[in-house]
Amino acid sequence: MTDPLTIAGRTFESRLILGTGGAASHTDIAESITASGTELVTVALRRVNPEAEGTVLDLLEKLGVDILPNTAGCFTAEQAVRTARLAREAFETNWIKLEVIGDENSLLPDQVELLEAAETLIGEGFVVLPYTNDDPILARHLEEAGCAAIMPLAAPIGTGLGVRNPHNLAMICDQARVPVICDAGIGTASDASQAMELGCDAIMLATAVTRAEKPALMAHAMKLAVEAGHAARNAGRIPRRHLAHASTTFEGMAEL
Amino acid sequence: MTDPLTIAGRTFESRLILGTGGAASHTDIAESITASGTELVTVALRRVNPEAEGTVLDLLEKLGVDILPNTAGCFTAEQAVRTARLAREAFETNWIKLEVIGDENSLLPDQVELLEAAETLIGEGFVVLPYTNDDPILARHLEEAGCAAIMPLAAPIGTGLGVRNPHNLAMICDQARVPVICDAGIGTASDASQAMELGCDAIMLATAVTRAEKPALMAHAMKLAVEAGHAARNAGRIPRRHLAHASTTFEGMAEL
Amino acid sequence: MTDPLTIAGRTFESRLILGTGGAASHTDIAESITASGTELVTVALRRVNPEAEGTVLDLLEKLGVDILPNTAGCFTAEQAVRTARLAREAFETNWIKLEVIGDENSLLPDQVELLEAAETLIGEGFVVLPYTNDDPILARHLEEAGCAAIMPLAAPIGTGLGVRNPHNLAMICDQARVPVICDAGIGTASDASQAMELGCDAIMLATAVTRAEKPALMAHAMKLAVEAGHAARNAGRIPRRHLAHASTTFEGMAEL
Amino acid sequence: MTDPLTIAGRTFESRLILGTGGAASHTDIAESITASGTELVTVALRRVNPEAEGTVLDLLEKLGVDILPNTAGCFTAEQAVRTARLAREAFETNWIKLEVIGDENSLLPDQVELLEAAETLIGEGFVVLPYTNDDPILARHLEEAGCAAIMPLAAPIGTGLGVRNPHNLAMICDQARVPVICDAGIGTASDASQAMELGCDAIMLATAVTRAEKPALMAHAMKLAVEAGHAARNAGRIPRRHLAHASTTFEGMAEL
Repeated sequence: MTDPLTIAGRTFESRLILGTGGAASHTDIAESITASGTELVTVALRRVNPEAEGTVLDLLEKLGVDILPNTAGCFTAEQAVRTARLAREAFETNWIKLEVIGDENSLLPDQVELLEAAETLIGEGFVVLPYTNDDPILARHLEEAGCAAIMPLAAPIGTGLGVRNPHNLAMICDQARVPVICDAGIGTASDASQAMELGCDAIMLATAVTRAEKPALMAHAMKLAVEAGHAARNAGRIPRRHLAHASTTFEGMAEL
Repeated sequence: MTDPLTIAGRTFESRLILGTGGAASHTDIAESITASGTELVTVALRRVNPEAEGTVLDLLEKLGVDILPNTAGCFTAEQAVRTARLAREAFETNWIKLEVIGDENSLLPDQVELLEAAETLIGEGFVVLPYTNDDPILARHLEEAGCAAIMPLAAPIGTGLGVRNPHNLAMICDQARVPVICDAGIGTASDASQAMELGCDAIMLATAVTRAEKPALMAHAMKLAVEAGHAARNAGRIPRRHLAHASTTFEGMAEL
Repeated sequence: MTDPLTIAGRTFESRLILGTGGAASHTDIAESITASGTELVTVALRRVNPEAEGTVLDLLEKLGVDILPNTAGCFTAEQAVRTARLAREAFETNWIKLEVIGDENSLLPDQVELLEAAETLIGEGFVVLPYTNDDPILARHLEEAGCAAIMPLAAPIGTGLGVRNPHNLAMICDQARVPVICDAGIGTASDASQAMELGCDAIMLATAVTRAEKPALMAHAMKLAVEAGHAARNAGRIPRRHLAHASTTFEGMAEL
Repeated sequence: MTDPLTIAGRTFESRLILGTGGAASHTDIAESITASGTELVTVALRRVNPEAEGTVLDLLEKLGVDILPNTAGCFTAEQAVRTARLAREAFETNWIKLEVIGDENSLLPDQVELLEAAETLIGEGFVVLPYTNDDPILARHLEEAGCAAIMPLAAPIGTGLGVRNPHNLAMICDQARVPVICDAGIGTASDASQAMELGCDAIMLATAVTRAEKPALMAHAMKLAVEAGHAARNAGRIPRRHLAHASTTFEGMAEL
């Protein structure tokens, strides 16, 4: 039974996308990527020198995973657009995970700058995957602008707080006609399952794995959790009830 | 990497225990059991005739899973003790999932009757696995009485509400020196993951699978979710933070 | 508009009961009691010498509030019963807030010992108000034993975690035919409002006021919160909806 | 002890703002306004004819409350700006509650259009109070644009779901230097208290009162809840603890 994820015509067996930020070593990264089963890893342009040897890029190439460059650290549409162009040349891909941060402390996205950058980059032929807040209206604007996927947060980057507003995330999933990838805020396996159950098509995370006590084991947990949540979504869960409902009825019970 | 569950000296590779109540057909039961990987299935004495042919018992035998008889439908210690004795003879096992229900609507356990029944049955050589509420003090009493495991609820039977009181469940897990098996109230995969992350050693569920739209697919989801939650627990999750924490630092950022 | 609370035939205008444990000074106690409007204050027998002068008892008498002795610090039914008898003599009241603690760290009640002590004391003519967990079955047993009220916890004593399991608390309120007084775990005003909205008849709290930065102001907040929650319960709140519902319809909208 | 709310130089004793949408009758409106103690009521331009007699406007004038016109029903910045200008003339006030809706079903605000409309209206001398989502970055943009207050939602309009994302609301309150008025989604008294405890300066609501079974009683509950939450915020609540903390210590306990 296969049920691949398709983004802008590319197909992935894994519904988990990893970042490497915060990893303690290349060994941790390699083991985590292998354990996670991911096929796509995001890398910040400004953190790597694509031409240096022995970098994380070499490692990712050796592991056979694709690279999704991102614009982490950009605070304006202009910065993000310039970074995306540099990334396109450096990584030889027109895919870009678009981040435009509005605040240094919370690292929350800036919706106005984000939408502007997305429109510009789509006009230049980029495949844009924007990191956004959990607002359904902005998600719709991003989709209408031509984004290849929507990447709403579960919670602020690095907080591990899980899905703060399931209601909003479900609304985004219900309305979207492009893949919804939950990005940022996942802390543990059940957070990833829950996001998938709400209707997300994939999960993107970094800190939850790289800063766990045992990164490779957490990567394995996340792989299972994403598959579990996706299967549970498709299996059609039972409704929540306030009154209990016995699986064993009381009719015909023997007098003991 | 194996990490088996041991209850009263018996070892299980799977940390998922199923019930069959509510299943639409024997086909659904067989497919769900296979998809779940479970090795132990609970059966209500009063729902089966152990000597009839073509029953669920034949099916379970054919599937190679062990049977854990339960006392579902008993409202007093006396009823439960008598049912357990009958079950021991019928199923040729001294293991019993002890249920003493306090209320027909909520199917919540009656703590006082439960403890009394547990003490009696342990005195008679039973291996007692009691279905209890999420009260840490009662859990300790049951453990001190000699129960082989503690089976606290996540939520009332059949509600699918998930872990209503994570704080209590975590306290029970922290103090217990016997396995803690979360029983009742699980609705979907993330509920099972969460219970394992809180420290439970195993999950017991029935309705969430048998009444899902696609039972076998949900059974598969639950298998993955239990493994995911167990791995995540052991992997040591990141702490929850109220302030974001960037995986990419801002030092040395190139001027773009 | 008056809507008094009646417990065992006694009538109270205020639905807030206070404890004084943790108070920094008698001034704080006096100001908090006045600000709270409470008519009933619980006092641990073992913390006061009823015959000493200048004690909290003198203060309470001067403030005109009634005393509800409690059995705080008792770990067995026997201890609690003995303490209750001493309190009856010392305080000249047959009312007792019955506490039987099961664990020194969590201070959670011990259901089995609690029920036993309640039965004994009721047999001796006490008006028993038991501090219990949030289990609906135990609440029913306590009511059937003849308790004058049920005092389920919101969360463990002193944690300020608020209502951990609203579902259980609502079940207790729905079934009870004696007053339900939410006791322990209230941290702030909205916790008290919520407990009243779930159907509680009154709130008992100590730490939330005595250890607040400004105790008297918090006591005032709690007074308002209890009244607010009680009024909101009686006012019949709107249902929760997942889809928005405009207060202004779109029909007949002028073309602007 | 007075602690007035000041918005754009105007001072209010009440921290509760009401809408009248959904009210069953003028009697209900009058009784609710009186019971709430509000001094400011929002009115949709397109729902009233300011020159007709016997309208809600006459009623509000008679009750002595001020009118805050709003742009409910507008879907673009252009519509909202035109509506605001008409409202200024009709109601002879330059205050405007700015609503630019992004979706007819959820009635969620459209951030991009909202910010554009706010900038235009501020340029024209309006005192702008924008209804916004709970995004801290957009809240900052609105404040920097010169808005007189920020009105983030608790949940979508009319849902009664309460504060969906307390974390976001607290971030908005922590950073704002203009009043934060929680608008939309309040269902019952504890929701209003909670929003105030998170740091909001005032609450705006309509449906929770107008569609309650007893509107005037709910208006009274909301009055108390807003005051309770505000006092609790200022009183400095106790911290939440995972381990219990006895208000009665065990030292020096008499042997009973």
